Amino acid sequence: MSNAARFPAPKNKSESEEGTVFAPRFDAEGLVPVVVTSARTGEVLMLAYMNDEALARTIETGEAHYWSRSRGRLWRKGEESGNSQRVVEMRTDCDQDALWLMVEMGGAEASCHTGRRSCFYRTVPIGEGATGSLALHFVESETLFAPDSVYRHAHAAKGTLKSSE
Amino acid sequence: MSNAARFPAPKNKSESEEGTVFAPRFDAEGLVPVVVTSARTGEVLMLAYMNDEALARTIETGEAHYWSRSRGRLWRKGEESGNSQRVVEMRTDCDQDALWLMVEMGGAEASCHTGRRSCFYRTVPIGEGATGSLALHFVESETLFAPDSVYRHAHAAKGTLKSSE
Repeated sequence: MSNAARFPAPKNKSESEEGTVFAPRFDAEGLVPVVVTSARTGEVLMLAYMNDEALARTIETGEAHYWSRSRGRLWRKGEESGNSQRVVEMRTDCDQDALWLMVEMGGAEASCHTGRRSCFYRTVPIGEGATGSLALHFVESETLFAPDSVYRHAHAAKGTLKSSE
Repeated sequence: MSNAARFPAPKNKSESEEGTVFAPRFDAEGLVPVVVTSARTGEVLMLAYMNDEALARTIETGEAHYWSRSRGRLWRKGEESGNSQRVVEMRTDCDQDALWLMVEMGGAEASCHTGRRSCFYRTVPIGEGATGSLALHFVESETLFAPDSVYRHAHAAKGTLKSSE
């Protein structure tokens, strides 16, 4: 099924930006980036991607579905790990080529496949002297589940997993 | 200057995920997506992109620089509109192919080129009955500046502007 079949095709700039018709713009690979934040704490949990099917299923079920670029398949968040994401609110941006999901997490409340709550667990230094090799600083080191005991399939073993399934 | 010259090349999965060396992964177009949130309110303001030069300048100056995909050039946020973004904190995600900036906004505190605070000013309906054409709902309609009076260059006229310059 093509994008056009699931969602209306984007019209002009004015319609996309100031209109009320949801007409998402998928990129050349048929994907749209999705910012995922915690509805409870507001923190950014992950940046994921949806194709039109993942987006349609998310809207229909209220459960976050994504497209895994590394594994080339659709997945429901938490289908294996139990770390599901219930969508409290979805927003689209001005030109409708990005989405923002506010979610409530299930399971261990870990969105990252490394077992952490957020994928964004390290800071990058800013300011003077920030040249050459930059040292990241861990701000979240606690893991809420043990990836090795949760992911027993081939993709985890091959290291192609990103967000917690 | 190549990516490798500005930043170390990514090594293996373990180094990327659990290491302390900042080795960002740029996509096939040399870009990395950047989630931008307000350091004050936590809300998601925009999703933007950086090439290696924009990233290096942001780190060096503490002022957000992005790569405009529509205009094909680097820009410092607010260079024209005054709506600059001072970086309070930058984070990278598990596999270092996405960034999160927490920023303090200058000027009218509008990050969107439409004059709004956030680019994410419309919600998408979730749940049963969400089939066919979906109606967006405006949650932020107030404009903090008048785009027509701020952007007087050709790009604005051509409608290729996205975030507020």
